[in-house]
Amino acid sequence: MPKAKTLRAPQPEPFRQTLTSVAANLQVGDWQLSHRDLKLPGTPPCSVRKYTLHGGKQEGVDVIEVDNGALRFTVIPTRGMGVLRVEMGELRLGWDSPVREVVHPKFVNLQSRGGLGWLEGFNEWLVRCGLESCGAPGPDKFRTPTGTEAALDLTLHGKIANTPASEVEVTIDRTPPYRIRVRGRVDERGLFGPQFELWTEISTEPGSNCFRVEDRIRNAGAVSQEFQLLYHVNYGPPLLEAGARFRAAFKRVTPANAYSAEHVRQFDTYAAPTAGFAEQVYFLEPLADDSGRALVMLHNAAADRGVSMTFALDQLPCLTLWKNTGAIADGYVTGLEPGTGYPNPRQVERQAGRVPRLAPGETRSFAIDFALHTDKAQVALASSAIDRLQG
Amino acid sequence: MPKAKTLRAPQPEPFRQTLTSVAANLQVGDWQLSHRDLKLPGTPPCSVRKYTLHGGKQEGVDVIEVDNGALRFTVIPTRGMGVLRVEMGELRLGWDSPVREVVHPKFVNLQSRGGLGWLEGFNEWLVRCGLESCGAPGPDKFRTPTGTEAALDLTLHGKIANTPASEVEVTIDRTPPYRIRVRGRVDERGLFGPQFELWTEISTEPGSNCFRVEDRIRNAGAVSQEFQLLYHVNYGPPLLEAGARFRAAFKRVTPANAYSAEHVRQFDTYAAPTAGFAEQVYFLEPLADDSGRALVMLHNAAADRGVSMTFALDQLPCLTLWKNTGAIADGYVTGLEPGTGYPNPRQVERQAGRVPRLAPGETRSFAIDFALHTDKAQVALASSAIDRLQG
Amino acid sequence: MPKAKTLRAPQPEPFRQTLTSVAANLQVGDWQLSHRDLKLPGTPPCSVRKYTLHGGKQEGVDVIEVDNGALRFTVIPTRGMGVLRVEMGELRLGWDSPVREVVHPKFVNLQSRGGLGWLEGFNEWLVRCGLESCGAPGPDKFRTPTGTEAALDLTLHGKIANTPASEVEVTIDRTPPYRIRVRGRVDERGLFGPQFELWTEISTEPGSNCFRVEDRIRNAGAVSQEFQLLYHVNYGPPLLEAGARFRAAFKRVTPANAYSAEHVRQFDTYAAPTAGFAEQVYFLEPLADDSGRALVMLHNAAADRGVSMTFALDQLPCLTLWKNTGAIADGYVTGLEPGTGYPNPRQVERQAGRVPRLAPGETRSFAIDFALHTDKAQVALASSAIDRLQG
Repeated sequence: MPKAKTLRAPQPEPFRQTLTSVAANLQVGDWQLSHRDLKLPGTPPCSVRKYTLHGGKQEGVDVIEVDNGALRFTVIPTRGMGVLRVEMGELRLGWDSPVREVVHPKFVNLQSRGGLGWLEGFNEWLVRCGLESCGAPGPDKFRTPTGTEAALDLTLHGKIANTPASEVEVTIDRTPPYRIRVRGRVDERGLFGPQFELWTEISTEPGSNCFRVEDRIRNAGAVSQEFQLLYHVNYGPPLLEAGARFRAAFKRVTPANAYSAEHVRQFDTYAAPTAGFAEQVYFLEPLADDSGRALVMLHNAAADRGVSMTFALDQLPCLTLWKNTGAIADGYVTGLEPGTGYPNPRQVERQAGRVPRLAPGETRSFAIDFALHTDKAQVALASSAIDRLQG
Repeated sequence: MPKAKTLRAPQPEPFRQTLTSVAANLQVGDWQLSHRDLKLPGTPPCSVRKYTLHGGKQEGVDVIEVDNGALRFTVIPTRGMGVLRVEMGELRLGWDSPVREVVHPKFVNLQSRGGLGWLEGFNEWLVRCGLESCGAPGPDKFRTPTGTEAALDLTLHGKIANTPASEVEVTIDRTPPYRIRVRGRVDERGLFGPQFELWTEISTEPGSNCFRVEDRIRNAGAVSQEFQLLYHVNYGPPLLEAGARFRAAFKRVTPANAYSAEHVRQFDTYAAPTAGFAEQVYFLEPLADDSGRALVMLHNAAADRGVSMTFALDQLPCLTLWKNTGAIADGYVTGLEPGTGYPNPRQVERQAGRVPRLAPGETRSFAIDFALHTDKAQVALASSAIDRLQG
Repeated sequence: MPKAKTLRAPQPEPFRQTLTSVAANLQVGDWQLSHRDLKLPGTPPCSVRKYTLHGGKQEGVDVIEVDNGALRFTVIPTRGMGVLRVEMGELRLGWDSPVREVVHPKFVNLQSRGGLGWLEGFNEWLVRCGLESCGAPGPDKFRTPTGTEAALDLTLHGKIANTPASEVEVTIDRTPPYRIRVRGRVDERGLFGPQFELWTEISTEPGSNCFRVEDRIRNAGAVSQEFQLLYHVNYGPPLLEAGARFRAAFKRVTPANAYSAEHVRQFDTYAAPTAGFAEQVYFLEPLADDSGRALVMLHNAAADRGVSMTFALDQLPCLTLWKNTGAIADGYVTGLEPGTGYPNPRQVERQAGRVPRLAPGETRSFAIDFALHTDKAQVALASSAIDRLQG
């Protein structure tokens, strides 16, 4: 008779599908999988689908769509594992950039237009900025790992968003709650430069209105290395509209420049689309709850739809609010941007002590939890949590 | 009994084949069609064929060849719908650039060699320069649509020729004269930048010695935007040879620089290929006929082969003549270049009032008609039309 | 009756397989061939195999692996016919660059990081630097072929290594010793720029421990043109290790800078991997034997494994020794770099008379012979040859 007391049921290995692999010299073409293929009992209909985009500047871009039965998100391995959009019923996380195609990095010259070439491919809902640098373009002077003086002409928001993933896989747990994960490794490496390995993961559970972005950066080099990471998370309609509100508990808000300072009293509310609107930027120091986590929210004018983001301040101490409420055609958008720092020139950030370093072999983790709110009660719940934090 | 009097025969929809479409996520592979497939009665044998180039820097470039039974032209969707060459019997429109491959934009860095990277892919018969800027590379200071001062380091002749088309289609009318059209949309868009949609069309009729290039530029943004457009139309042998002539009726010709001024008396005739020849450039103000259209021609020494170009001066008021009669191996070529301005630095063109603006949503159209002349009579006919205009 | 006396047995044409051809609009997919297919009598098992790399920045890169039965080398047509690595048993020529993928040129921006973008794709065992320029990045002033003053902001080591081959073929002689050749043409051409055609060849014989790299550069233009060529040949473990030695007979060794001068006494020996090691560079003038050829060697600490390189000094008069013995993770490597000059800024090299010119149509050839040594006797033999030369 088996010693059932001391036995633990073996945890079945998750389902795993490699979609891209430098190690295995593999690039899977069109591929899809549904809950039926995995025979997951009692889950809503969910699916994962990988396909390739065609035409114009999106020729050859791979995307992965995950549908958890309640919400759907689209990951772009070819663009550094950014997330194009998230949809749940009529609620959409994302925006309508003037850039209409999912631009392949081979068509992006980051040095174009005075270091602003990044803007020619920018249309994701969530795009990572970094890793060697992020923020405004321009010259930076610094010391290399070997101690010599060096100068670099940095480009806007760094390279990671225009770097194709080297390893991409989908995993699905075979035990409840059957978590679905899209994972990808994006490398930013070169001789005499940083040697970063970024493992990204976006995951959700069948039927859930929540999902999580969780990343690990490793310094694969033998010398200590500066890095910067900022999550440029961008929202247009329907969340963004006249009367929409940004909510956060915070210690301090600092306008990024004189023009933003003029409008700081209305920094947390939004105007209707306005042709010729000049962007406003605010730097916030969020407050954390007892577990060290900050909670921020964007909700619409009626406060019956919203999205909240929670993240640990020891990972992402800074939050940038980007208000760019120009005409719809020009990209009516606001960015809620948790980061290791603010998107100033790296020189400024370094002087302010906001450019962290990774020791040789060191790994740092970052996570943001997203929740979509689709009625007044949910929005109110998040709102009062923020009020409590501020209070 | 039907009221036949008031009935109009329904116009049959043209045959239409989409070859590339971002909207439909479509990229058709090799494809072809002939007059037999369409059962067009009474036309000479004509065909359209799309295929992909391979090897070196042309790997992955799509081209479309149209043969109208008399002449044949080759369009390059991957390079902004430029036209590689036109052939009719022994007459060839085009030139032998040192660039021997049809270079994929992924291999072009416009900022290379001090903003002259464009030259590393330049070998088309007709290539559009623009749309945000064209002309000489270098710094430009200007006001953005939102009124702030901005500076850009512009690259030679802008980006449009190195932008792949987002939508490409072939249409053929099912009623006489069975016009064949290759149409493509090329976008030049980005956040905080211009938002241009360029619809190009090149069309011809079965059996004709003529064809037409017709373009529309739309400002898809919500703010007014400067633009520049120049058709860099380039001719080598057999039209270009010692004794070949450029013909145009014009108000004024202005040498682009002191060196060109030294040779202004011979500005409209050509020398044999000359190793080490330094380029000469002339800016012309063409004269129009009663319908507002200019006529220019290039013909060979014997005046028994030529090409004429007609265009409306309210669309394209400026004509640049580029003489670059170096050795055959170095690219023996002349450019007849109708444009909204001249290829000076944009700063110069703006000060001269030659950088037009498009209001939000505004569309501007441009057309050039080309006719190939294959005997003395045809050349003489065009010549005397030019003489009448000048007179 | 045949005049048998004067007849010479017809030499059978070598086996020839075109793999890439712009001229034939051809790109062969996966392909392989073995000694069995060719029925070569008495050779060891040898093979040639072409395939494509996938994932990350290596998506779409073609490689060709040649196995001569004793050694194996991997050529990269997509990266200018560079050689990724050579292997013979446990002996490996190559190194472990922080760049882990064979990076497609479409992902390389040579102007990145102040003209150091080349480093983001650098991981070959043998990579050619040139052809218009090689060496340190930065501004250069010079006279164009037509005599005008010109300025260029040069990028590190030029363009040729990030240019895909236009023609690639494999040939195998049908008569002993059945030499196997991988040949490729790489063009560096543009209007108003150089017009170089580089034919590369790497060849070996079945069963041999030797192979040869043999290149021809032709100036296809009609005016005289400067060029630079340097073979950046890079070695990591197992040859490179603490106590490994560089051997060469030379007239003079010149440290490239003050820091290198401090360590000039140990210039020909190597330390163990050292995190944070700053590179040292030495410029050598090698001595030639009676046939005008130099011999250099790198061998391990035990002097029982090594590689020797021989080359003609009238082709490659300069030898640069690059010592970059940082941590394994950062790229523990030394470069033995025969060239037409040293990798100084081109301005410096021109002033020193080390920037050769090619007349119109002129061709120059370059060859390096490599031999792999796998025991003490072989290393000693090469060593004593070097001693004799120095003596």
